Amino acid sequence: MIRISAYHSPRCFGYSGASAGAAICKIIRDAGPISRAELGRRTGLSKSTVSLHVERLLNLGLIAEEATPSGKRTRLVFNREAGYVVAIDLGVTSVDVALCDLGGTIIRHEERSIRVSDGPEIVLSEIMAVIDAILSENQVEPGQLYGIGMGIPAPVEFSTGYPINPPIMPGWHKYPLRKILGERYQCLVYIDNDVNLMAVGEMQYGVGRGEENQIFVKVGSGIGAGIILNGKLYRGAKGCAGDIGHISLKNSEELCPCGNKGCLEMVASGRALARLGTKLALEGESHALRRILDEGREITAKDIGDLASQGDLLCVSLIRMSGEAIGEVLAGLINFVNPSLIVLGGGVAGLGGRWLTTIKEVIYRKSTPLATRGLEIRFSELKSKAGVIGAAALVVDEVFSIDRVTQMVSQEG
Amino acid sequence: MIRISAYHSPRCFGYSGASAGAAICKIIRDAGPISRAELGRRTGLSKSTVSLHVERLLNLGLIAEEATPSGKRTRLVFNREAGYVVAIDLGVTSVDVALCDLGGTIIRHEERSIRVSDGPEIVLSEIMAVIDAILSENQVEPGQLYGIGMGIPAPVEFSTGYPINPPIMPGWHKYPLRKILGERYQCLVYIDNDVNLMAVGEMQYGVGRGEENQIFVKVGSGIGAGIILNGKLYRGAKGCAGDIGHISLKNSEELCPCGNKGCLEMVASGRALARLGTKLALEGESHALRRILDEGREITAKDIGDLASQGDLLCVSLIRMSGEAIGEVLAGLINFVNPSLIVLGGGVAGLGGRWLTTIKEVIYRKSTPLATRGLEIRFSELKSKAGVIGAAALVVDEVFSIDRVTQMVSQEG
Repeated sequence: MIRISAYHSPRCFGYSGASAGAAICKIIRDAGPISRAELGRRTGLSKSTVSLHVERLLNLGLIAEEATPSGKRTRLVFNREAGYVVAIDLGVTSVDVALCDLGGTIIRHEERSIRVSDGPEIVLSEIMAVIDAILSENQVEPGQLYGIGMGIPAPVEFSTGYPINPPIMPGWHKYPLRKILGERYQCLVYIDNDVNLMAVGEMQYGVGRGEENQIFVKVGSGIGAGIILNGKLYRGAKGCAGDIGHISLKNSEELCPCGNKGCLEMVASGRALARLGTKLALEGESHALRRILDEGREITAKDIGDLASQGDLLCVSLIRMSGEAIGEVLAGLINFVNPSLIVLGGGVAGLGGRWLTTIKEVIYRKSTPLATRGLEIRFSELKSKAGVIGAAALVVDEVFSIDRVTQMVSQEG
Repeated sequence: MIRISAYHSPRCFGYSGASAGAAICKIIRDAGPISRAELGRRTGLSKSTVSLHVERLLNLGLIAEEATPSGKRTRLVFNREAGYVVAIDLGVTSVDVALCDLGGTIIRHEERSIRVSDGPEIVLSEIMAVIDAILSENQVEPGQLYGIGMGIPAPVEFSTGYPINPPIMPGWHKYPLRKILGERYQCLVYIDNDVNLMAVGEMQYGVGRGEENQIFVKVGSGIGAGIILNGKLYRGAKGCAGDIGHISLKNSEELCPCGNKGCLEMVASGRALARLGTKLALEGESHALRRILDEGREITAKDIGDLASQGDLLCVSLIRMSGEAIGEVLAGLINFVNPSLIVLGGGVAGLGGRWLTTIKEVIYRKSTPLATRGLEIRFSELKSKAGVIGAAALVVDEVFSIDRVTQMVSQEG
């Protein structure tokens, strides 16, 4: 079961110059600035062979030379400024669109209100209008856009980029997002589940750096998880891994639209908090919540968080209830996965310390001592930007994969 | 997050002849019988280079030439008979020891009663007596034994082979199994959790062949899972992934020795069935079960299964209860992992169809439709031999890993 697949891949033996060049590009991207001599040591290739590949990558503009502190121009860096990628994080009621350099750094970030329920044609045309505006404002020439990465709040078949039977996105099933964006912008397009991309963002640039086995839990309107195992995003057999919102709770009989009773989302999500808060307000259980309705506003999870932090006991108990439910489900998953890190993100994570403390308390009580040894449980560091940063990371890694760069080098060479 | 790590490994570039030879050995092991010409095509290496490596592997005895149907001796096969490995599956009350060829095929299989609670010195000396006997009967010469693979019913730190805080094996914590066996038999030794190895066995030789994402669930005295993700065994951050016996059930308040209430093991395991059956017998609820006690025997899970298949309604309800509890826990894990296959093994799986039907029923009711699309739920094919076959597969794959064979070829070359 220990397969070292790349070793018996044809490209690994007697690889063409192009794929050696691509691998050198990857080393420079991961470990640069780096000297030609160090590249030689790491690859075992001769000085002249390294120089040949470096020359080609310089010609392609993928790498650049950088002055060392002593002033000699001998170290090589990945040329983040050689082009751009666009990162998109689609939510239920808003979309984030960012223009990024090839290092995944955000150059320009726009957020727009949309309604995913309007269907893919309308939403996609709104997104493309934002992309067009950003590209034009930043004078991005055709050919400078290397790729688009997009997260959507639905299960995704990653190989095709199709949304698959998305429960909250009627009309999006198998909608050809990749084809439409690819033809319009003439670049590579990668689509993934939004929470998967948040997990990738936190792993590469956030609180999860260096952790090989981590679970990102998004608690917003709904609840989902992104799973990083052995340092890689794990998507599951059909692309819907991490769907934890409908795991059943111990002491809950709340009926869920999915047909089951006691689903996590019915008690712990932002939507659940808002619903329960509204119910208590209408029943006259909470004057503070009632006042919000009387002002003509809808009660949100944030209202409940604000009131709880002011000491409103009913709101404190609602937040504890959410934390306990999430802790209970995570306790089981932690026994199963034995991760080293849990990252909590999404709007409800903004409710703060009391919520997190409850979750930790339940996990440490209910998980086995072995499974929680060395386990960290933390808030997301990238917060609302986790998704768009993850989308940028995904597209950059895909565009500059060994295979893709091999193609670029072959066409050049 | 898409790391193609082997590509920028130093060994991949400018690899020495030895590691190219090792990779050729791996191709022959996976895809043989195979011709030299096909090896050339797969590796991109020249005819003369392939011949050189093949010659070395032939000299080492790791591969052999085989006659093609036409009678010409041109195809190469891995030489399964070049040596042996020993596979051990340690249980709580018994141990399986097998002598296998280098293809992992069992040549000789012995089972002995032991008590893991006697501690590692006594148990290990009993195991070594069995190994000694098997080696001597089969005239295995020193140097012909390539490795030992062993599964134990405890969490294992795979890199060191140490049992870690094993709940049911007091005295085994960090016991140097690998060192003791390695010094005694002068070979490589690999230790892993027993259920992990059952999962490996089913994936390589059983019902799980070709499934990339599968969960093997052992329901015996205790309950545990082995997790195969992306075609590889997943062990978790500290080696205790798959510990599902203490996940909490919805409608159970049964107190567990772990300190929590409603743990899966307290309701669904073989030990739980025996305990509950005994309780019902003593309370006079079941004449059939009472008769077993009156005969001076202890009630086992098998008794309950036998009576259920004879139509005893109380025993049927016990088996349904076990199945429902397992189904409930698996339903949540299936939402989370989105596997394509669940394999059920261990003694309780022997209780048969009614138990399996209940599990399936609960899973299809409680998991999301997306997560169960294309999901198969099956009994183990290798049954009580899954562990020992998995241990053989593990040790063969480790002993003939690219790194190890590179060493062998270097020493030869």
